[in-house]
Formats: sequence, structure tokens, C-alpha cells
Amino acid sequence: MQSHHHPKSLLRFRSLGIDTKQELVVFMPKSCYVCQSEGFQALTRLNVGLNNCNIIATLNTTENGLLNDGEISLSISAIKKLGVKDGDFLWVDHLDPLESMTYVRSKLFGNALNQEALSAIISDVAEEKYSNIYLSSFVSACSGDNMNPEEICYLTKAMIETGNKLSWDERIIADKHCVGGIPGNRTSMIVVPIIASLGITIPKTSSRAITSPAGTADTMGVITNVNLSMQEMQKVVKKEKGCIVWGAAVKLSPADDIIIKIEKALDIDSEGQMVASILSKKVAAGSTHCVIDIPVGTTAKVRSTENALILAAQMEKVAKYIGLKINIIFTDGSQPVGFGIGPALEARDVLSVLRNEDKSSKELRSRALKISAAIIHLVKNESEESAYRIAEKQLSSEAAYQKLLAICEAQGGFNEPKTAKYIKIVEVQTDGIIKEIDNRKIARVAKLAGAPDVSVAGVDFFVQLNQKVEKGQPLFSIHANSPGELEYAYDYYKRGNHQIIHLNDE
Amino acid sequence: MQSHHHPKSLLRFRSLGIDTKQELVVFMPKSCYVCQSEGFQALTRLNVGLNNCNIIATLNTTENGLLNDGEISLSISAIKKLGVKDGDFLWVDHLDPLESMTYVRSKLFGNALNQEALSAIISDVAEEKYSNIYLSSFVSACSGDNMNPEEICYLTKAMIETGNKLSWDERIIADKHCVGGIPGNRTSMIVVPIIASLGITIPKTSSRAITSPAGTADTMGVITNVNLSMQEMQKVVKKEKGCIVWGAAVKLSPADDIIIKIEKALDIDSEGQMVASILSKKVAAGSTHCVIDIPVGTTAKVRSTENALILAAQMEKVAKYIGLKINIIFTDGSQPVGFGIGPALEARDVLSVLRNEDKSSKELRSRALKISAAIIHLVKNESEESAYRIAEKQLSSEAAYQKLLAICEAQGGFNEPKTAKYIKIVEVQTDGIIKEIDNRKIARVAKLAGAPDVSVAGVDFFVQLNQKVEKGQPLFSIHANSPGELEYAYDYYKRGNHQIIHLNDE
Repeated sequence: MQSHHHPKSLLRFRSLGIDTKQELVVFMPKSCYVCQSEGFQALTRLNVGLNNCNIIATLNTTENGLLNDGEISLSISAIKKLGVKDGDFLWVDHLDPLESMTYVRSKLFGNALNQEALSAIISDVAEEKYSNIYLSSFVSACSGDNMNPEEICYLTKAMIETGNKLSWDERIIADKHCVGGIPGNRTSMIVVPIIASLGITIPKTSSRAITSPAGTADTMGVITNVNLSMQEMQKVVKKEKGCIVWGAAVKLSPADDIIIKIEKALDIDSEGQMVASILSKKVAAGSTHCVIDIPVGTTAKVRSTENALILAAQMEKVAKYIGLKINIIFTDGSQPVGFGIGPALEARDVLSVLRNEDKSSKELRSRALKISAAIIHLVKNESEESAYRIAEKQLSSEAAYQKLLAICEAQGGFNEPKTAKYIKIVEVQTDGIIKEIDNRKIARVAKLAGAPDVSVAGVDFFVQLNQKVEKGQPLFSIHANSPGELEYAYDYYKRGNHQIIHLNDE
Repeated sequence: MQSHHHPKSLLRFRSLGIDTKQELVVFMPKSCYVCQSEGFQALTRLNVGLNNCNIIATLNTTENGLLNDGEISLSISAIKKLGVKDGDFLWVDHLDPLESMTYVRSKLFGNALNQEALSAIISDVAEEKYSNIYLSSFVSACSGDNMNPEEICYLTKAMIETGNKLSWDERIIADKHCVGGIPGNRTSMIVVPIIASLGITIPKTSSRAITSPAGTADTMGVITNVNLSMQEMQKVVKKEKGCIVWGAAVKLSPADDIIIKIEKALDIDSEGQMVASILSKKVAAGSTHCVIDIPVGTTAKVRSTENALILAAQMEKVAKYIGLKINIIFTDGSQPVGFGIGPALEARDVLSVLRNEDKSSKELRSRALKISAAIIHLVKNESEESAYRIAEKQLSSEAAYQKLLAICEAQGGFNEPKTAKYIKIVEVQTDGIIKEIDNRKIARVAKLAGAPDVSVAGVDFFVQLNQKVEKGQPLFSIHANSPGELEYAYDYYKRGNHQIIHLNDE
């Protein structure tokens, strides 16, 4: 492509330091020779290249001499992608129409997509050829229950095809996944050491928080390094049978990461997208046997048993199509799982369970054992009762705790969680019984306090559902590293008090 | 809203001159106190205010000292909207969730929208509260045949409610509309002067090209000013009984203009959206009687008689709902109408017909007469034959030509169309008969050459359907104002040659 470009049409790169997040943007002065002669206008999608490398970016034109004629700039994401430095010369070119958008339009007209169509779309998304407007259209077309079971199978396969794939020497690779939505549900950090301590390979890739106050990668990140390369991850697993690392660092499904950001911006859930996202990452991670935990509750992601059953049926179908053995369990999604919400507080709860401390969360312990037993049952053909006893023994004997320490050591060393600088205790305001806890709103308080970016920030619960409480009794504490964030989170709680924790005062 | 803001959280505005077109963007340094303490991240939607005025904008964060801490900037569109000057102090605030997006999500889940829902969405769109991502989702949700007849009625009424409305002294206000899709179909510029010369009021608001190489407003814009205010338009009509102006300049349907830009970016058509767009603008423009021309052909917008009948039935239903009298006619959509495609070339063809030149397009003339007759029939209760004779007399006597000149004079003066700097003649490559012309692909050649933004750019045809041609004979010429655009358009034609013009060489 380079050969087309006359030296006169090359533009000198100068960084402006503008972060447009995921969307790649190119900045050119409106009066620029190339803009004028090629007829480029703001929002045009362009090919921008350095020698033989190129990216596709959206044009924003500049005025007022921010850039001089003959100069060009890129958003931070585009600079990284193209690997360009100040003073480099770039070429720009018209873009061929994006063929795979034809399939998106066809889907909007009610036609189901086949494997070829979904593979073409996902491949273009992974190569960052879709603008935010295109992505929004695709996400909207496939949102809700707009995908039929076959389409979800095709989407899942397309996602597996586009990312990196991990391969392992062992024939059986165990895994677990929780369909999010409940704060404090940090079972992976207990399940992985239990299973690995039994000699079963369980290389866990986890996500960072998307809309929640902490993801497993954030919580594991408190006690050890989670940014491992594929090679480093394989080394840890070879030595310890298990690991817990940040999935995005190994780029298992680049298209999925892009799509999830748009879903978040639109606040749209797509069941098909979610199933494809979860299962494609499992297969890409090399898993063969996977337990799926679906918490069900009015403020969890899955709100009713009926929805949970539909979701489970879809997962079973897709798992079969892509050759993954799964075991789905439903759990209670009505209240936070441990005591803490936020990376450091959740890490503390996890360590407390593994250390068999008296004050540890019984709920977190029992969920971790239930999931571990489901894995042992799926992989080893043990009866459910026997599988549960095996898991419990590994936990009680602290074999699991020792295994977690060994995994942390292999990932880069173990660190004890720290505590926030500012803590405010919120008290119960009237006598009563705790009847309902709004997981979404409590998560918001933790986020306003700084979680997950400030790892020690969050909320620490002193009570649980159906507990009798008295006026003046500690309800929860807010943890933050700055007085501003502490106040901000507390203000939000105060304004929405009655809606976050329902008391029955009879 | 202003009272909330502590002086410390006010930021000093400095213009950077970045044009993000329609989307309002706010720039803040990543390290800024307000970003940090409020947890604002790139792509967050924010309320940005100057005293008591505010806009909603998407955040882009900056690095490298482009903005200093305590400074803030806006995209050019946002600067205009907020009316802010360098040195002004702005406040920024979290945005309440956009309630009407709940209806968009509900639509994506398959629920039909009622009048309340569509009025809320269209009102928010008109107030520019929707980001491009939200707009894309709404457009996608309502694309194709995803709207039922009731929803189209509600959408139409919502669009009438949000924009300005024109009112006229006369009891009968005639109008015409062509459902696009055939290049060169510039009948309005002939019909309006015919009708106005008969003393019938016909204040025509036209659109600029959406996906085509020229809209009537682009073509009329070649020979006169089309950016008239409502007052100016009313003055012209009072004097001359007719006008042809750009509809968006009088803001008849601000939401529709925004939606159409996104449809263009997505290259998506929505039948419901189209019906609502057309009919709402007619009512908002004060029309009482309207002829709708639907060209039908395999490469026109409406591809079959069956589709045309469905569309006509939808239009009849909506017209009744909003109290508009319409007369729908079907015309041949199998080939370009005039010779030229592109604003200046089409203006030349129109003038040629009005001047009764020998070389003028018979097809353009006959279509203009057919539509004029349909209007006279609808408004005056004349028989179809008599109506046709009346129209023909106005055209042949050049009463219509004199009326167009008078209308141009009243709108700001008449200019003869100009010619492009670069012209390339494309020759027939084998002997044969022209059997098919792909309107969409020919339109694409004209667009790649620069039309409609470059008004002299486009394609000029030397042949027509069923004509016998010989190798080496001129087929059409490409007109452009830069060698780059000329080459680009020609390259596209060469690559898809056999698909654009089908020859039967027997």
C-alpha cells in the first residue's frame, strides 16, 4: 500500500496526548492539503499507515493551529497500536467499505447469521475495523434474546477463532466460571488451590471489574502479580497445577473485550453475547471441563429461576457445539457473599477462609466447597457426596492454603492485603430485621469509595440478611484512601439509604 | 444546578479547535482534580455547564500537557452550543441516566413502543442528549421492518411535535416528495415552478443527499441560496407562491436530521423511519396535499412492486393518522433519470428541460409533467388528462422557466452551474446493447469522485438503457476537482466494471 504514496502526501506525526479510549482517532488540520485533495471530512474512517503497517481510524479535523498543515496526530490508543513516534511520517488513504457490516444490516432486517457471517464480523471487530457506531449497531442487533441458539454457537466459535489459544500437556483441564452480579463472590481463589492441591490442572484466567467494585483479577492482584504472559502462566501451571491470572493479558478474545465496553456504555445485556463470551474464553484457555455457577436473585445478574434455566439450556447447547464439558450449578444471589466488597477486603475474606479462621465467612466457604465438589464430580466421576468430602479435606487441612501461597510465590511473591487510610462506620438507624440488601447499590458505594482502582477501598459488612439489628449497631464501614472519596461514597449512601438496605421494623 | 459547584471544581475553558462533527465532546486532562475526585473516565457522558446553561458531552481525557490541570476544552460543536469563550469558567457534573434509553432497550427486547416512549426518545434526540453510540442503537432497533404500523404513526407524530412548524395563509398547500434511489431524479426543480406558475402555493423544503450523490437541496444549491430562515422562506413564498430550500435550515425536524446522519454512517435504511421522516416534514412544513413519487426498480430504493405497495399502504395509514391528503404514484426506477449525476450536472439537466432545449432529457421532462399533473389533479379536482395538458402548457411556454428564475432571484440570485476541473471519459469496451445499469454502483462512482460535497463532481451519461453501443464509444464521463478523487472513482469503476453496466453482446 505504501508504494501509492507520493512524498507530498506524507504527514509528519506530532503527539497531542488525547485519549479517546478504545476508538482509534486520527487528527488532521481542516486546511491540510491531503484532507482537501482527498475530500476527507470529520468522522470519515481512514487507513493511516507508517511504512507497511496501518490502522483504521476515525478522522477528527482541527482548527486554530492546534496542528499545522503537513502535521498529523493520533489518539493515545492509535499511537500505541501503530507504534509511531514524534517526527515519523504517516500516509493516509481512503478505506474500502467494510464488507462484514452487510451481515449486520442483514441481521437488523431479521435474517439469522450463519458461521461465515459471524466469523467475518468478529474478525473485523478483533482487528479494530469497527467504529463505535458500527459496534453499537452490531451489539444492538444481537442484544436481548435476538440471537437464536445456532447463532450463539456460531458467535462462540468465531470468538474462539480470533484470539490466542492456550494449550496444555494434560488431557483434562478444569475450570470454573461465575455469571457475575454478587459482590464479594471471590470463590475462585479458594476453588483453584483446592483443585490444584488434588493434582488436577486448573489454569484460571480471570477478568478485572467491568461494572463491579472488584473482579477476581483485581482481588488476586492484591496478594500477587496477575499480569503474566502466556509463557509465564504455563510455567506456573507446570509447577503448581493451577494459577489465577488476568485473562486480557493473554488476549484470549480481543473482540469480546471490545464488545463488552460498548455493552457497558449502552447498559445493554445480551444473553447470547454473554454465553459466547464466557464459553469462548474457556475453550481458548484450553479448558475441557468447566463448572458454571449461576447466582440467582432479584438484584443479581440473573434475576429469576426461569431465566437461569433458559440461560443454562443455551449454555449446554453451545458447550456441546464447541466440545466443552460443563456442569451448571445455581446458587443464592440475594446478598453479598463475604464480608468485604473491594479488592483488598475480598482478599482478606478469602485468606480467612483458607486459614480456617473462626471469624471467616461461612457463606464463602460453603460456596467454594460446592463449586470444588462440582468440579471433582465432573472430572473424576466421584459421587457428589464423596466429591464434597474430598474438597472439604483439602480446605480444612490447609493443603489448599499452602497451595495458594505456592501459586502466589510462582506468580511473583505473596503480599498480605493492606488496610485503607480512612474508614467510616455506618450505624443501623432503627431496630429491625435486615430484609433485603441491594447488591447493585452497595456495589456503587464501594466504587464511589475508589474500588477497584484503589485496591484497599470498598465496603465491609458487619451484618447479614435476616439478622436482627438494633439502632446504633455497626451496619457496615466504608474504606477509602482520601477523605473526598469517603465523603462522596457516604453521601450517595445517605441519599439512597432506605433503598439500599431494607429493614423490617416489626 | 450551578449552586452545587464549589469554586474549586470550576475549570477554566481554553479552545483547542477540535471538530468532532455532530458529537459534543469535552476534553479534560487525565490528571485533573475533578476527573480524579469524581472518577470520570474517557467516554463518560457528562453535564458541562456555563452558569445556568448546560450541555451533555462525551469525555475525552488528555495527557502530555495539552491542557493544564484546572483547564477544560470542548469540541467546536459544543463551543457553539454552549456559547463559551476562552477564559470562561465551566462546571462539570455526573449525568443522570437517560430515561428514554430504557425504551430503546425494551424495543431491542422485542417490545413495541407506544406514543409516550417514542415522544420521549425523539425529544431527547432533538435536545442532543443521545451520544453516537445511543443513536446507533436506536437507529438499529428501528431499522429494516422492525417497526409496526402503529409505531410508525407514533414516531411520525413525535417528530412533528419536536421541530418548528410552518404556517401559511392559504387553505391549500401543495407539496411533492420522491422516495429517493434513482440518480438524476431532480423533478422538484421543474414541478415547483410549474405549480407555482399556476398560482398554487408550493413551499418546498428539500433534503441534502443522505447516501446518494445529490439531494434536491444540493442541486438547487448550485444555482441559488437554499439556506433560508423561516422568515426568509415565507417572504419568498408570499412573493412567488413557491420556493425550494434546505429543510434542515428551518429545523422542521431536528431529531430526524440527527438520526439521518447516523443512518448514513451505518448505511442502514429503515422503512418506518423513512415514512416518519417524509410525512412528518410535510406536516411540519404546513402541507395539506402531497404527491408521493415511488420509483420502483431492482436497483432503486424500492426494488419491487410488492414492496412499493406495502410502503404505499404504510404511508396511507400514517397520512390518515396525521391528517395529510396524499396521492401516491409509482414510476420506473430502472435507470438514471437525467444524464448527469451530481449537483451541478443535475442542475444543468433541469435547466435544459425548463429551457426546452433539444438535447434535454425526455425522461426527466415526462416525469416532471406526470408529478405536476398528479398535484393539479389532487388539488384542483381536474381530470388526469386535463391536469397533464395544463402542466405541459406551463413548461412549453417557459412560464415555468421564468418562475424558477424568479424563485432563485427571491432566494438570493441565480447562478449558472460550473464545470469540474478534471474529466475522464470512460469508453464502451465491447459491442452490444445496454441491458442494465446498477444505480447504486453508479451513484457510488459519483460519490467517490466527490459528490455531493464537491458540487461539480459526478458522472455524466452518454447512453441509456436498451441503446445499441460499439466498442470505443463514450459510455460516461467522471467529473472531479482533484486528480486523486478522479482516480479513486475510476479505480472503483474498473474493479467492478462488469457489475455496473450489463451489456448484452448478442
